[in-house]
Amino acid sequence: MQFREINPSPRLLMCPGPTDADPRVLRAMSAPILGQFDPEFTSLMNETMEMERRLFQTKNEQTYVVNSTSRGGLETVLTAAICPGDKVLIPAFGRFGYLLNEILARSGADITIIEREWGTVFEPEEIEAELKKGGYKAVAIIHGETSTSMMQPLEEIGKICKQYDAMLIVDTVATLGGVDIRVDEWGIDACIGGTQKCISAPSGTALITYNKRIEEIIAKRKRVEKGIRAESDVDGTLPPIPSNYLDLAQLQDYWSPRRLNHHTEATSAQYGVHEALRIILQEGLEARFARHILNDKALCAGLEAMGLKIFGDRKHKAPVVTAFHIPEGMSGPALRSDILNHFGIELATSFGPLDGKVIRIGNMGFSSQKRNVLLTLGALEAVLLSHKVKVPSGDAVAAALAVYKEAEK
Amino acid sequence: MQFREINPSPRLLMCPGPTDADPRVLRAMSAPILGQFDPEFTSLMNETMEMERRLFQTKNEQTYVVNSTSRGGLETVLTAAICPGDKVLIPAFGRFGYLLNEILARSGADITIIEREWGTVFEPEEIEAELKKGGYKAVAIIHGETSTSMMQPLEEIGKICKQYDAMLIVDTVATLGGVDIRVDEWGIDACIGGTQKCISAPSGTALITYNKRIEEIIAKRKRVEKGIRAESDVDGTLPPIPSNYLDLAQLQDYWSPRRLNHHTEATSAQYGVHEALRIILQEGLEARFARHILNDKALCAGLEAMGLKIFGDRKHKAPVVTAFHIPEGMSGPALRSDILNHFGIELATSFGPLDGKVIRIGNMGFSSQKRNVLLTLGALEAVLLSHKVKVPSGDAVAAALAVYKEAEK
Repeated sequence: MQFREINPSPRLLMCPGPTDADPRVLRAMSAPILGQFDPEFTSLMNETMEMERRLFQTKNEQTYVVNSTSRGGLETVLTAAICPGDKVLIPAFGRFGYLLNEILARSGADITIIEREWGTVFEPEEIEAELKKGGYKAVAIIHGETSTSMMQPLEEIGKICKQYDAMLIVDTVATLGGVDIRVDEWGIDACIGGTQKCISAPSGTALITYNKRIEEIIAKRKRVEKGIRAESDVDGTLPPIPSNYLDLAQLQDYWSPRRLNHHTEATSAQYGVHEALRIILQEGLEARFARHILNDKALCAGLEAMGLKIFGDRKHKAPVVTAFHIPEGMSGPALRSDILNHFGIELATSFGPLDGKVIRIGNMGFSSQKRNVLLTLGALEAVLLSHKVKVPSGDAVAAALAVYKEAEK
Repeated sequence: MQFREINPSPRLLMCPGPTDADPRVLRAMSAPILGQFDPEFTSLMNETMEMERRLFQTKNEQTYVVNSTSRGGLETVLTAAICPGDKVLIPAFGRFGYLLNEILARSGADITIIEREWGTVFEPEEIEAELKKGGYKAVAIIHGETSTSMMQPLEEIGKICKQYDAMLIVDTVATLGGVDIRVDEWGIDACIGGTQKCISAPSGTALITYNKRIEEIIAKRKRVEKGIRAESDVDGTLPPIPSNYLDLAQLQDYWSPRRLNHHTEATSAQYGVHEALRIILQEGLEARFARHILNDKALCAGLEAMGLKIFGDRKHKAPVVTAFHIPEGMSGPALRSDILNHFGIELATSFGPLDGKVIRIGNMGFSSQKRNVLLTLGALEAVLLSHKVKVPSGDAVAAALAVYKEAEK
C-alpha cells in the first residue's frame, strides 16, 4: 500500500454536512500549537465563549466547546442534564430524534417518544398534550432535522416547557450559524451545535450552552478522579455522570477560571472555531441569516423550474437543507456518483424511509453562495439529462438567477 | 471584548504534551474538506489504518482512529472491552492509573487497584500474585506514566496475562511514536495512543488497536439507533456499550467496508493523523526511537551537570519525559512562568503528591531535537541563576553537547 500526501481533488460540498470549511478557518488552524494552560491560549478560549454567546443569543455563562463531533456534544449535555430515571419527552420527526432517544436510553432515562411523519413538524399542542400528563423533567428535540429538511418552530414549545417546568434541550447542529436561534428569548435551557455545517469549520467540535438550572443539576453529580481531585470535587447528591470524557461537570471546571486539568484541549480545532465565530460575527447575524434565506429561495426556484418536487411541508422547510424527490427512472446512487465524479459536487441521500427516495442539498455557511447554487443547479440538470430524465433545459439556472435579480432591486 | 486573529507567540513546547505539531502535519490539515463517504476520503482512512498497524507493530484488522482526545480513546476501548461486573486489575503507579480506574468505575466494572509509590513501576510478580486469586477478565495499565516519568515494562506482564487468560489493555498515550511498542509480540489485546505527544499532531484524536478477542466481545454488545438500524445491528448477548458517541461497535462498522453512518469524521484531524503517521514511517521506527533515547540522554546529562536531581527510578524512566526535583529556594510556578515569558519555552508541573515538587520536561516527537534540548537547558540555567539558585554556569549545555559528540563517533 502506498501512503500518499494529502492532496484532495477539488470538491464543492453541497451536502448538508460536512460542508466546505472557510479557507480562513483552515489557515487559522495551521498556526503553531500553544500549551493548554498558556495564558495566550486560555484567553482565546474566553474569547470563543463570548463569541459563542452572541451566536446563541444568550447570556449563559456556561457557553463553550466540547472536543467531540456534534453527536458527542449532544451526549455530553443530555447525559449530564438528565439523570437515570428522569422522565423525558422526545418528539421525533426524523432520524436525529431517534439519536436523542438512543443516547438517553443508554443512560437510563425514562423516555416517551412521540412521532411525526417524516416531512412534517410538531404543533405546540401536541407537545402540550403530552406534558399535561405530568412528571416530565425535560423535552429534547431537534431544531433542524437534516434527514427530512424540516425545521421545528421552538418559541411556543419554549413557553409550554416553562409552563410545565420541563427543561427544553435543543439540537441545533444543522441550523446554528445559518438560522436565527434565540436561546434566551425562546426559553431554551440547553442548546448544542456542531462545527461542520453552518459554522463552516471542520467536524470534530461541538458548541454548547446551558443555563443555571442545568449548572445546579451537574453540581450535584460532580466527581473528579483521584490524582487531581480536590475536596469539593465530589458531591454525590445525584448519581455521577456516566462518562468521564463527556463529563460536563469536569468540562465546566476546565472552561472556568479554575482550569481543572481534564483532557488536553484540541488546540487546532479551537483555533478553527475561534476564527469561524469571528467570521460569523464579522458578517453579522442578520446578514448571514438573510444570505441563507436568499440562496435557499434561489435553489428551490431552480429545482422547481426543473420540474423536481421538493419533499415535505414547505412551510417548515429549513433554509439550510432541501430534499427533492428522485425523479422516476433515475437512480439515486447514480445521480450522486455522476455529480461527484464529473463535477466534483457532493450531494447527499437520506436515511430510513427516505433512503433512495430523496436527494438532499445543503445550503450551509461558507457553502451557501450564489455561485454554488448556480453551479449545482447546472450540474444537476446535466446529470438528469444524461440519464434521459426529461428536464426543461436551461430553466433551472435562469429561475435561480431571476430570484437573485429580484433581490437586488 | 476584542476578538483577535489567531497569532500565537513563538513557543517551544518542552512539556510532556501537547507538543509542537510537525509543521507538515499542520499544512496537511489546511487542505479543503472531503465528504466523509467520498471514496478519496475513505481510501485515506484505509491508509491511516495500515500505517497505524505498522506503528503499533500489529496485524490487528481493527486499528483506527477515534474522534476524541486520548482520554476519550481510552474510555472508548475500556468501556467496550469490559462489561459491567467484569473483574479488572489496575496496577496504578501514577495519576493516569487513577484515570483508568475512574473510567471503568463509572461503567460498573469490578475493579481491584494495586498501587505503587510514584516514581517506581511494578514487578511482574506483583501482577501475577493478584491474578492468581482468579476471576480477572482484564488488566488495564499505563505504559508511560507521564505524571511520574516512569515506563512500565510490558513483555512479562503480557505473558502472565495470557497465562491467566486476562486481557491486557494498555495506555500508550505518552509513548506511542517515541518508544518501541510491540502490540502483537508483547501480547497486548488492546492499545490506545494519543496524537498530542510523540505523534506530533494536534490533540483531538486517539489511535486505537484491538484484537479478535475484543471484537468478539463488542459484537455481543451491538446496538444501533432506529433510523439507520439494520436487522443484524442489535445482538444483546451482553449489555450494550454505555455511550453512543464512544461506541466501539458502531465505530468499527464506520471504519469497515460497511461505512455505517455514525458521527461525521473529523476531516482535518484525519488529514493530520495521516500525515503524522507518514512522517513517522518515513523516518523509520528504529531511527525515531533511537533519536528519542539520544536526546533523553543529553537532556539528563545536562540536568545532572546543573546539579539537579532527576526524580524516580532511573532504570525505568521513560525516554520521552523527565522529572527533576525543584531545587531548594526556587518556586515551581515562578520557574515555569519565567521560562515561558522570557524564553517562550513551556515546561510542566505534575499532579497530586508531586505537584510543586518536580518540573517535567517532555522529549516527544517533533519536539525531541538536539536544538530544543540545548535551548531548554540554557534557558533553565538562566532562570535558576536569576533566582539565585547555585548552578555551575555553562556546564549543562556542555554536558549535553558532549553526549551528542560521543554519539557521532
